[in-house]
Amino acid sequence: MARIVQKFGGTSVADVECIRKAAKKAKAEVDAGNEVAVVVSAMAGVTDQLVEYVGTMSPIYDACEYDGVVSSGEQVTAGLMAMALQDIGVQARSWLGWQLPVRTDDSHSRARIKTIDSSEVDLRLKEGEVAVMPGFQGITENERVTTLGRGGSDTSAVALAGALNADRCDIYTDVDGVYTCDPRIVLKAQKLDRITYEEMLEMASQGAKVLQTRSVEMAMNHGVRLYVRSTFTDSEGTLVCDEDEILENQVVSGIAYSRDEAKITLVQVPDRPGVAAAIFGPLADENVNVDMIVQSTAADGALTDITFTVAKIDYHRAEQMLGDLQKRIGFQSVIADSDVVKVSVIGVGMRSHAGVAQLMFKTLSEKGINLQVISTSEIKVSVLIAEEYAELALRALHTAYGLDAD
Amino acid sequence: MARIVQKFGGTSVADVECIRKAAKKAKAEVDAGNEVAVVVSAMAGVTDQLVEYVGTMSPIYDACEYDGVVSSGEQVTAGLMAMALQDIGVQARSWLGWQLPVRTDDSHSRARIKTIDSSEVDLRLKEGEVAVMPGFQGITENERVTTLGRGGSDTSAVALAGALNADRCDIYTDVDGVYTCDPRIVLKAQKLDRITYEEMLEMASQGAKVLQTRSVEMAMNHGVRLYVRSTFTDSEGTLVCDEDEILENQVVSGIAYSRDEAKITLVQVPDRPGVAAAIFGPLADENVNVDMIVQSTAADGALTDITFTVAKIDYHRAEQMLGDLQKRIGFQSVIADSDVVKVSVIGVGMRSHAGVAQLMFKTLSEKGINLQVISTSEIKVSVLIAEEYAELALRALHTAYGLDAD
Repeated sequence: MARIVQKFGGTSVADVECIRKAAKKAKAEVDAGNEVAVVVSAMAGVTDQLVEYVGTMSPIYDACEYDGVVSSGEQVTAGLMAMALQDIGVQARSWLGWQLPVRTDDSHSRARIKTIDSSEVDLRLKEGEVAVMPGFQGITENERVTTLGRGGSDTSAVALAGALNADRCDIYTDVDGVYTCDPRIVLKAQKLDRITYEEMLEMASQGAKVLQTRSVEMAMNHGVRLYVRSTFTDSEGTLVCDEDEILENQVVSGIAYSRDEAKITLVQVPDRPGVAAAIFGPLADENVNVDMIVQSTAADGALTDITFTVAKIDYHRAEQMLGDLQKRIGFQSVIADSDVVKVSVIGVGMRSHAGVAQLMFKTLSEKGINLQVISTSEIKVSVLIAEEYAELALRALHTAYGLDAD
Repeated sequence: MARIVQKFGGTSVADVECIRKAAKKAKAEVDAGNEVAVVVSAMAGVTDQLVEYVGTMSPIYDACEYDGVVSSGEQVTAGLMAMALQDIGVQARSWLGWQLPVRTDDSHSRARIKTIDSSEVDLRLKEGEVAVMPGFQGITENERVTTLGRGGSDTSAVALAGALNADRCDIYTDVDGVYTCDPRIVLKAQKLDRITYEEMLEMASQGAKVLQTRSVEMAMNHGVRLYVRSTFTDSEGTLVCDEDEILENQVVSGIAYSRDEAKITLVQVPDRPGVAAAIFGPLADENVNVDMIVQSTAADGALTDITFTVAKIDYHRAEQMLGDLQKRIGFQSVIADSDVVKVSVIGVGMRSHAGVAQLMFKTLSEKGINLQVISTSEIKVSVLIAEEYAELALRALHTAYGLDAD
């Protein structure tokens, strides 16, 4: 007997028939003698519709009210899922965020879960009842509704799995696992049987959309075994687990890419102490997240160029803020470019293997691709290149690192 | 300065633009120095969609889960309304049923409000903040979501007005008040400036759909002045109030009709004590509401016919139950007819005027309309007639009682 949390994403609960199919996945685990909790997203398209209502109502909206509105989609799916389970003879009830409760901080629209009171659910699971929880939602100490950011239902599922001390958290989605690269671009991409938390974290934060970054981080911190699998097939999925559960690691496990970033270069910035703080401080204050940063050596020792990337949605805001800062800091000009893509090779094997970055640079150079920005971490090398080379770069790297399927 | 609860129905909040217009109605009251609470329905069509999801999922569903699903529509409108108010410079926040809380009994899908804790809202109204509450929803003592039945947002508004000791409860709708008869059928129908609670209660329960019956009953019990008015025009509406606030009463104030009933006749029922209880007891146990009942004199003193009406939605269920009872009670047969309409003339003036029923019977007789069932109360006479005569009967009665507009 195991205790399992199942999470079904938007396409897995797109309509009544899909919810019925998902309910059968839960029933199969119940019939196998397991205790099951189910976390559901909103039906596909519902959250987009709600977000559109809010956007149409007011460009600058109250995040508390936004959360109350957009969290309603998951509430609907949760009730329908409980009914679908009851309809096939499985004891079930829904538990809304405020009913458990799921407590979060008060960062509305991107709140972080603090605690889940699962004591009542724990008892009922033991009695064979399936608990159905809407993902994405929680409440603050002040009893206002919060949401966890897009993709937040993954995090809800992992947090519930942690609170319930579950043996596994199954993330049901419309793909059948985590791939070495996006199979829509790299036809020879292979599904991974296993991947470490660290790698998955980098994959997610570097652009792979299969899991919300925060959910992987939380799974890693709480030791929740994550299993990414398809709602629509019975094929084996991908297990996200500790490094010691994986027998032999590839040097590189996967290649991720993100078109969501834009590049900004400040030309001829005075090269004096405090200048970086003067640039990035105001951006941070306005919640503009800066990712890659490079500063070129000042040839004459007085002026330097600083290049960095921001999320595309923050791009115009950042450009405007920098225009305002130009006089005060005294740089010559701002060059902005949103036609860029970030490509990252990821693998825990890098820790013990040299030459991984070198192979990346060589491969891209052979294809005539110019590297605009480079950044590295212990298990990742990322480069920013012109967007038009994205597919070419991904396929070349996939082959170079020996990831191609036979 | 007055304290006003405004309620906006589904067509008044049909989309973002409608919500914006409704918000302006609230702002107008705030600008006039009044304290305002707003109760909203789901956007037009949303509740129907949710009910359809539930019906498709399972013909026999868990009413607790049903309530969780269908109550979500009002939650969306409440958030959007709060944003719309903020957008035009009015301080506002939404209060979900569980946040106040609105406590109800546990009759899921047709719950009755027991208490509303409005202490916090009361304070904030005094500070100039508008409270926005989703109608139709509440929670039980066990913290499960309940709904109040279709049209329940009217009742939510009246209950909130009672709890807040409001001076008036304005029901904004897509018609501009209460009419002497349905103006789509009787072109000479007139809008009433005032109507008594008792009359409005009869009008609502006899088929006029402008207000939920329960809301009128609650307004009467708590002395809440109800004002029915149009969201789309600025014309004067209809005030529902105590009899002593109305200077001169018509003998008949209005004529209502309902196509929602069906007639059932049990033929040759043994005429012995306890037989009525044996028939209507089981129906009541199954929540089948019986309205009009007539029993014809038993000619031979041994067998009688019993005719009664039930709601059309309960019609097949009732017919089946009676089939099962046939042997035990020993009647000869069941004749059921759903092509009927109930027409009611209503007026508190009846108490002191004789001949009201007589005029009704005479008028219908002159038009060759046969009366199938008659029932009366202190301020109402209802007759059941063949559905095909509905329009003819309404127009003839409207003229006969002197209600036609010039």
